[in-house]
Amino acid sequence: MTSLSTNPYKGTRDYYPREKRIQNYIFNIWARTVKQFGYEEYGAPMLEPLEVYTAKSGDELAGEQTYRFTDRGERQVAIRPEMTPSISRMVAAKRQELAYPARLFSIANFMRYERPQRGREREFWQMNVDMFGAAGVQADAEIITLGFETMKAFGATPNMYSIKVNSRTLIDAMMQDYLGLDPIQAPLMVKLFDRKNKISNEDFRDQAIEIFGVDNAKEGLGKIAKLLIAKEISSLPSELSEHETVAELSSLFEVLQQRGVTNVQFDITLMRGFDYYTGTVFEFFDSHPDNNRAMFGGGRYDGLVGLFGAEPISAVGMAPGLSPIELFLESHNLLPEFASTTELYMATLDESLIPQAYDLASQLRSEKVNVELDFTGRKLDKQIKTAVKKQIPYVVFIGENEVKSQKFNVKNTKTGEEEAVVFERLVTLVKDKRHNYSVDDNDLFE
Amino acid sequence: MTSLSTNPYKGTRDYYPREKRIQNYIFNIWARTVKQFGYEEYGAPMLEPLEVYTAKSGDELAGEQTYRFTDRGERQVAIRPEMTPSISRMVAAKRQELAYPARLFSIANFMRYERPQRGREREFWQMNVDMFGAAGVQADAEIITLGFETMKAFGATPNMYSIKVNSRTLIDAMMQDYLGLDPIQAPLMVKLFDRKNKISNEDFRDQAIEIFGVDNAKEGLGKIAKLLIAKEISSLPSELSEHETVAELSSLFEVLQQRGVTNVQFDITLMRGFDYYTGTVFEFFDSHPDNNRAMFGGGRYDGLVGLFGAEPISAVGMAPGLSPIELFLESHNLLPEFASTTELYMATLDESLIPQAYDLASQLRSEKVNVELDFTGRKLDKQIKTAVKKQIPYVVFIGENEVKSQKFNVKNTKTGEEEAVVFERLVTLVKDKRHNYSVDDNDLFE
Repeated sequence: MTSLSTNPYKGTRDYYPREKRIQNYIFNIWARTVKQFGYEEYGAPMLEPLEVYTAKSGDELAGEQTYRFTDRGERQVAIRPEMTPSISRMVAAKRQELAYPARLFSIANFMRYERPQRGREREFWQMNVDMFGAAGVQADAEIITLGFETMKAFGATPNMYSIKVNSRTLIDAMMQDYLGLDPIQAPLMVKLFDRKNKISNEDFRDQAIEIFGVDNAKEGLGKIAKLLIAKEISSLPSELSEHETVAELSSLFEVLQQRGVTNVQFDITLMRGFDYYTGTVFEFFDSHPDNNRAMFGGGRYDGLVGLFGAEPISAVGMAPGLSPIELFLESHNLLPEFASTTELYMATLDESLIPQAYDLASQLRSEKVNVELDFTGRKLDKQIKTAVKKQIPYVVFIGENEVKSQKFNVKNTKTGEEEAVVFERLVTLVKDKRHNYSVDDNDLFE
Repeated sequence: MTSLSTNPYKGTRDYYPREKRIQNYIFNIWARTVKQFGYEEYGAPMLEPLEVYTAKSGDELAGEQTYRFTDRGERQVAIRPEMTPSISRMVAAKRQELAYPARLFSIANFMRYERPQRGREREFWQMNVDMFGAAGVQADAEIITLGFETMKAFGATPNMYSIKVNSRTLIDAMMQDYLGLDPIQAPLMVKLFDRKNKISNEDFRDQAIEIFGVDNAKEGLGKIAKLLIAKEISSLPSELSEHETVAELSSLFEVLQQRGVTNVQFDITLMRGFDYYTGTVFEFFDSHPDNNRAMFGGGRYDGLVGLFGAEPISAVGMAPGLSPIELFLESHNLLPEFASTTELYMATLDESLIPQAYDLASQLRSEKVNVELDFTGRKLDKQIKTAVKKQIPYVVFIGENEVKSQKFNVKNTKTGEEEAVVFERLVTLVKDKRHNYSVDDNDLFE
């Protein structure tokens, strides 16, 4: 019989304890931060009816990127490629019972057909943070502030990244009123702007000419040039600067400044891919030269809940992803060193002492120390080696003398130092060492 | 346009914050308990190549119950119906790098085609706890003890449930040596024993006769009758009592007794469905009359890692499921009352005070209080109603007087009591209320 492959499925990752610690660290900081702002956790199914995505997510995502299949009951289903349609469905289902503004978050995995590359997997994890039932600047500001506060909690300073902001209503005005595009041309131009940083200036120009048509191309390109030099909202061309959204965005920038969110900038070229956005959109960009890319984004999508037969409910949210944040933290040297969640390895010198060792381990566990008991009866150096390999900070040795004297030799696996201690000191020694990055009493799953 | 359905996909559940709190409570107790025994968390992909399951999981699971489809690269894939094959694959992949015994756990969701019913969904959550690289009684005892300790951490006492234990090697001896069944008859008889509690005595008898064949039926049934009266391992028929597994199981029961695991009983009829088990098997049974059923189980599966081309590695594990545990806790009245993770709702009397309210909220957040700020400018009673509906323990009111005097009126949303307090007292008031079920500094995602 040929043996089975040990590789994970294409584009997915196995998280061994070392990788899982990093994942948990990021999840934990996310959850702690948004819970401090009053967001409550929810969970949604990994499968949804396919139509939930075809209705509004944008062609590429619903069509080419979604894992879809027909189930045994002949239902068209999809593995969720994103969370926004699921949480919109959930809010629509309990529209009457929920209290507003509803502040909700989740941390979950998703799947999309992607060409796997650094920081982009077919199975990926992200947090979704959304506020339902509140329109306006304060709501938009809170979501962007949350993004800023999660980054701060990772140790990031504002110079390490920037927050680009635009608005769908301004984009619409720009496409229709300012550039004079019709309903067929406008979405093509949005897609072209969306790809702007991925193609050459020549390609952008050529494709823009194609959209404008030869007769209008010269005037259109001139107007685009004027747009692109507007690095601040106040320097927009006069045809756009009177638009009501401009005042709203100015007010948004002001609130963000007050809250210390200083690395925000207006960016008229920011489009965001999803079809469901209706107002403010934003993206967090890594400023590191090795990793100059969008990390995550979000925006306002006031129409999505209404697709589920409920009255429309205002909604704004964002979705930071695990892999982009991990790359960011690596690039900026912000990832702490992680030890095992196991704090003490108990090496037993003689198998006959296992019952006594077990009792001591139980006492330590009731003091909330995480103890791994080695009952293998192997040579001592092998037991120590196991503890070191597992990155467990301390080893304690249990022999006949230790059991009699109730004094225990403890070895620090990093420094090699050894110390003979009584039970109480053993507890404090281990607890003092605990997670210096730590998240103490405010964790996820609480 | 017809609107989209708000129902989740068949057999799946939406977890709104109220339901998610219960889920998190259970996940947290599980994770905390197994981490105290030195188990480290890992994660595996939600999709696996289909062959991972067809190789060894048992016909029904791999064939009829698995969500399988062909991906765009013409690969046969499955949404994981269980974790054991995935973690076996992962251990095989890093066989050389891992330190043994490897103690590993995960909490994850799975899918199976099931007829949805109370406590059984198509998407379900479970913890998997496994030890690799340790054979023998101590390893088996540790896994069963972990099951017992998780139940204890939920407040369950031994009389509320029982732990039934058997062994695949004993089952084999029973089928071949004792009942004299051939390799075709034996698996049929195993399946019949597995269904024993779900069918009538007459049906069991009839089907047993069919397996034995008319000539051997009388003798066979007599032997089965002798088996079924053996409620303890010491009262097994003499043909089996000499088997080496009997001594091992006796020793296992002794170790468990020493550790306070008093509700264990030998059960020769316990089979466990999966084909991969090779030694000790066990199941935790709810004793409540309304919910008399198997909650979860586990066992030894020494051959599975070897299927992935690595040398065989001993393995033993268990997998408690969320829904069965939730039903158990409900039946036995063990579920605590949960408040929101948000601890304080900040009602603002005037929209112009939002900047000051935000600053106060920030100060509270840096004291690790979870604060939701109401910036809607609604009438005060509406703001309070929102806090009550969200089950947030306290509301604080921010008006001009409060900002000036730095004394804040706080209302307990459950008792209705109000108190005027300074900042420091506000912090301690809220923190004292915190999660009486709590899990403090030892949570998941750490």
